[in-house]
Amino acid sequence: MPSVNPSVVLRKKHDIVYEDRPVPKLQDPHFVRIAIKKTGICGSDVHYVQHGETGPFVVKSPMVLGHESSGVIVEVGSAVTNVKVGDRVAVEPGYPSRYSKETMRGLYNLCPHMAFAATPPYDGTLARYFTVPEDFVYPLPDTVSFEDGALCEPLAVAVHANKLGNTTFGSSVYVFGAGPIGLLITATAKAYGATDILVIDLFDDKLEMAKKLGATAVYNSSNDKGVAPAEIVKKLHQTYFVPQVVLEATGAPPCIQVGVAATGNAGTYVQVGMSGNEVNGFPIGAIGVTEAVVKGSFRYNFGDYEDAVKLLANGKVDGSLLITHRFTFKEAIKAYDFAATGKAIKIMIDGPTDED
Amino acid sequence: MPSVNPSVVLRKKHDIVYEDRPVPKLQDPHFVRIAIKKTGICGSDVHYVQHGETGPFVVKSPMVLGHESSGVIVEVGSAVTNVKVGDRVAVEPGYPSRYSKETMRGLYNLCPHMAFAATPPYDGTLARYFTVPEDFVYPLPDTVSFEDGALCEPLAVAVHANKLGNTTFGSSVYVFGAGPIGLLITATAKAYGATDILVIDLFDDKLEMAKKLGATAVYNSSNDKGVAPAEIVKKLHQTYFVPQVVLEATGAPPCIQVGVAATGNAGTYVQVGMSGNEVNGFPIGAIGVTEAVVKGSFRYNFGDYEDAVKLLANGKVDGSLLITHRFTFKEAIKAYDFAATGKAIKIMIDGPTDED
Amino acid sequence: MPSVNPSVVLRKKHDIVYEDRPVPKLQDPHFVRIAIKKTGICGSDVHYVQHGETGPFVVKSPMVLGHESSGVIVEVGSAVTNVKVGDRVAVEPGYPSRYSKETMRGLYNLCPHMAFAATPPYDGTLARYFTVPEDFVYPLPDTVSFEDGALCEPLAVAVHANKLGNTTFGSSVYVFGAGPIGLLITATAKAYGATDILVIDLFDDKLEMAKKLGATAVYNSSNDKGVAPAEIVKKLHQTYFVPQVVLEATGAPPCIQVGVAATGNAGTYVQVGMSGNEVNGFPIGAIGVTEAVVKGSFRYNFGDYEDAVKLLANGKVDGSLLITHRFTFKEAIKAYDFAATGKAIKIMIDGPTDED
Amino acid sequence: MPSVNPSVVLRKKHDIVYEDRPVPKLQDPHFVRIAIKKTGICGSDVHYVQHGETGPFVVKSPMVLGHESSGVIVEVGSAVTNVKVGDRVAVEPGYPSRYSKETMRGLYNLCPHMAFAATPPYDGTLARYFTVPEDFVYPLPDTVSFEDGALCEPLAVAVHANKLGNTTFGSSVYVFGAGPIGLLITATAKAYGATDILVIDLFDDKLEMAKKLGATAVYNSSNDKGVAPAEIVKKLHQTYFVPQVVLEATGAPPCIQVGVAATGNAGTYVQVGMSGNEVNGFPIGAIGVTEAVVKGSFRYNFGDYEDAVKLLANGKVDGSLLITHRFTFKEAIKAYDFAATGKAIKIMIDGPTDED
Repeated sequence: MPSVNPSVVLRKKHDIVYEDRPVPKLQDPHFVRIAIKKTGICGSDVHYVQHGETGPFVVKSPMVLGHESSGVIVEVGSAVTNVKVGDRVAVEPGYPSRYSKETMRGLYNLCPHMAFAATPPYDGTLARYFTVPEDFVYPLPDTVSFEDGALCEPLAVAVHANKLGNTTFGSSVYVFGAGPIGLLITATAKAYGATDILVIDLFDDKLEMAKKLGATAVYNSSNDKGVAPAEIVKKLHQTYFVPQVVLEATGAPPCIQVGVAATGNAGTYVQVGMSGNEVNGFPIGAIGVTEAVVKGSFRYNFGDYEDAVKLLANGKVDGSLLITHRFTFKEAIKAYDFAATGKAIKIMIDGPTDED
Repeated sequence: MPSVNPSVVLRKKHDIVYEDRPVPKLQDPHFVRIAIKKTGICGSDVHYVQHGETGPFVVKSPMVLGHESSGVIVEVGSAVTNVKVGDRVAVEPGYPSRYSKETMRGLYNLCPHMAFAATPPYDGTLARYFTVPEDFVYPLPDTVSFEDGALCEPLAVAVHANKLGNTTFGSSVYVFGAGPIGLLITATAKAYGATDILVIDLFDDKLEMAKKLGATAVYNSSNDKGVAPAEIVKKLHQTYFVPQVVLEATGAPPCIQVGVAATGNAGTYVQVGMSGNEVNGFPIGAIGVTEAVVKGSFRYNFGDYEDAVKLLANGKVDGSLLITHRFTFKEAIKAYDFAATGKAIKIMIDGPTDED
Repeated sequence: MPSVNPSVVLRKKHDIVYEDRPVPKLQDPHFVRIAIKKTGICGSDVHYVQHGETGPFVVKSPMVLGHESSGVIVEVGSAVTNVKVGDRVAVEPGYPSRYSKETMRGLYNLCPHMAFAATPPYDGTLARYFTVPEDFVYPLPDTVSFEDGALCEPLAVAVHANKLGNTTFGSSVYVFGAGPIGLLITATAKAYGATDILVIDLFDDKLEMAKKLGATAVYNSSNDKGVAPAEIVKKLHQTYFVPQVVLEATGAPPCIQVGVAATGNAGTYVQVGMSGNEVNGFPIGAIGVTEAVVKGSFRYNFGDYEDAVKLLANGKVDGSLLITHRFTFKEAIKAYDFAATGKAIKIMIDGPTDED
Repeated sequence: MPSVNPSVVLRKKHDIVYEDRPVPKLQDPHFVRIAIKKTGICGSDVHYVQHGETGPFVVKSPMVLGHESSGVIVEVGSAVTNVKVGDRVAVEPGYPSRYSKETMRGLYNLCPHMAFAATPPYDGTLARYFTVPEDFVYPLPDTVSFEDGALCEPLAVAVHANKLGNTTFGSSVYVFGAGPIGLLITATAKAYGATDILVIDLFDDKLEMAKKLGATAVYNSSNDKGVAPAEIVKKLHQTYFVPQVVLEATGAPPCIQVGVAATGNAGTYVQVGMSGNEVNGFPIGAIGVTEAVVKGSFRYNFGDYEDAVKLLANGKVDGSLLITHRFTFKEAIKAYDFAATGKAIKIMIDGPTDED
């Protein structure tokens, strides 16, 4: 087994290097060590590379990139009972304190002590090895590839959003945004039984992909600049339907303004996309009349990763439609450059080979 | 029984007159007719008087004012079984269609066909007689006065808000605003078991009243102008506690900005107060991290009025603290003038006497 | 339009006759009159025919049979806005009082004043005409046949059970019974996203049908007589999985005993099948340790019929697999005789022709 | 600090001795060691003493008794941050694995790896010292005595039951049993806002105590032997009210039969009391018509102990009414003998003195 741990490290913005890091040790007897096989690139990675920060998180010291990964277990701690060396697994890249109130009441995603990969100061997964507790890896059936395993991370985000939105059989859903998250939200909404799914984006090619993944209707909003949100709501309601669930995956203020106001009586709006901390023109009067519920969605919680694996294993999400570009570990820096062009839906980077 | 129906009518803004209206007939066999005994003045009434409109509702033709009323049943339709002539009752002033989807799924407050007193084009309760279906009157125990019966209307608003906020034993609550609704929300939160209740307002005398009604702490925010909401949140959290429930009863943007951002992990923020249709600086980023849930609260729904009566009957809310001024029916116009000064908490107007 | 209303009437047990009943009038302006096209036979119908009663309901005077029907609207009341003459519809065969507390809080299925077809003293649907309020008919898309429209009734039962059971994507489910209700529950569970569905019955041919409709595993329990329930639970858990949802569609005590005890931690058991009023050997100790929740399921509530139509329109339930036998209106008595043999899954009877 | 750990040990049934056990070490850096000050006697302790077992748990080797305790923290692990040496605390006597699915989804009370005091093979708290993780002790305000701190254990059971039952302001509740748990359930129901509480027991003196603790009505069922449960239900409904919440704290079959059948439409029945594993005559038909929900209640979960402390700190539960007898540590064996007579409501045993 290689004794070195090649890693892709962001030293500061626009400064990515390859480094040999020490092979990580198991923090306690419940941990496992994974040899990483595939890592997807997320928009937040690109944001760190370009800006050195994402929201409240700032890169202050060199940090290994990557948090969408799958691999093979190569070492298990003495207390591990659920998995074994050789298991192919999806890796949930953040684990909480077991002692916080949030964790103990079933909300570990909100734990203030979360150690999350590639979120300063925690190193990411784009390396030969990564370690997490045994209950944060999810065995992959033979039919699920390592690439799909890496896709579980954004898919778990989509699962969490749909759970918060109460998507169920017969639901009517608006999805704002047809980027990777929006597309996975769409496919997940369909798997959860939604029968009416309108996807909204600025680009026809993305909307075409949304149709392949489950959209029953699409709307190109590129001509709506300057139109009052209430007018857009009216048009969407009349042309399509009044949604019980709205899943917002752009973070763009016009989408938030339209999405919240469009939510049907006692329906649920879920904010998945993130951009600024504040939004103007929030239609507070609308929810005062509809009693629509506005929720924030933060990563994923218990059961979400497990459901992501099931979605892939049951063929409900076709990862091959989404994974458009592939790079070797040695090409990782190039991969981040390409990601920044916005030409890919989802890019996959191989884990390092024994030679890397 | 008097055959005329003296009524206080708003013809257009700033133009209130007394009129003799026809005695209303029972619309169908489930209706009852009530002789009105007490009517409270609500901020929305004053808004109609001064502006001729409230939110989306515009006074286009003369409208009887008033919707916070109690009285005695004087006539019952042939199908009525739950109440009888002579019953002292609180009057729920709006009733829905029985055929809307909203009503049939238990959300009658959201029914698009709601006929609500003193909301154009529907006449209000400030008259000798008013009619509603039998299940929209609530018998008052002997220990509950007509004044308290009229107070059931804003109290039902407070009940509804606390139910949406999931206030329960041990809850930690922030209440924004110590006007009539904020005060009733405070008293209701205490009755629902909240153990930590911080009330926030600009005026010390209102905050003193809040303490009498259940606040465990109060905060005068009059020096916070210009302070960043995040700073205020920090101060409130450190000085008092992180709330699981936030009930906003002012509609003022700074309160919304602070209140939403202050809501604890997976907590609930309820917008009760209404002002503009949109609010700027809404802390969307905050709920993306806390997964706080933001809800609109619209009037009241099944069970809320019943609980309002119980709160009064069980001595959980002391109406005598809130009802600060009283006027006769003949003085109703004067009462609205006085209400506009903001010197009263809650004003009560007598129903017309036989001589009126 | 024919002025007579041929009807299949149960006078007392084992005594079915054809009668010409008066054409029913619209009770109020919200009612519609439907010309019945197809009516399915339900086990409860057969029970009435053979025993003159079902549970607490006793046939004391002649009663028209049938409650699983579809048809065409031939008359609408003056207040009707949602449907029109000529619409093909599924008919929800029971409607509540609009004034009961149950209805107003969104639980109309529990309304004590429910008027339910073919439940004494209310006449059923097996006639030329039937009347219900406009919101109790559901337009059928062109792709949904009248037979499937009639199937909506038991399908709504299956929808209601799955909603109570919280079946959602990834759910693990046990279904007891592979009769018509059990099979529809199975298909619905799959449509709601259940990924593990074990169906349990005494007959292999029924279990084969269960596989076609969505079962991922089946278990023939015919050799379990005399085995302690706890042993059976252990075997099922070890061989298959521990279910989060158990849907019991037989009413048989051994199934109840095993099903309740088999329900996983904090899972949900739903009693759909009915037989006696009491059951012995109920494993109360088991739910004291698992905190499993035991629910009764009564018919269907708001939204269930609508979802049944969607299940058929979306191809999630294939009615043609279930409808095994067909009879003309004139053969209705023969159809009931045949139903009693238990050889059919679902029998359909045509509505009367103009000549009948 | 004493280096010995005097303990009250049950060797086998009817065989209690005092032993000097080793002072327990902190299992990991999150643990704390408590010097026990007060320990209440629970019915399950008495059951172990008399039968050597309780339900599925059998005493196979000597076991320290006691699990209702309070004390003072005398040692904290290196990772402890929430409490410190010298803190007066209530001790939650069972702690789960941090790695089970149940714990991670917020249901730690259902964790299969729970280590629970005085439940074989785990030693209890009736000793000089006991150790638990830092988040399983709850600081007591100065106004809450050690005796009340020990009472938190059964009070947390009552809190959990009321939460499962959804007791809230205005709830109508039946409580079966006026022993210590039934009485605490009654007081808790009142604190949670229940306005109608009927307590049912066989003994008038217990029912008198129930009135002091919050019952609004009481019913002595001693004359109901041989009466059909349905008749009793009818009588209770007519004489008192139809409950939305039923909390069963006896485990006696007649109470279960009446309680389940008495639960109102869509109401909740919670099984708190335990006796046999199975019950006959369970009214399954009743919940098929009412859609009442039957839940098992197992100990307590996150937040319940905290709420128990709040109930005492806020004066909602008056422990002095319930604690009827007191014994020194040296008299512990006598205390168990006395407990077996059933003459006490709640017995408290002092922790050992330095001389013990």
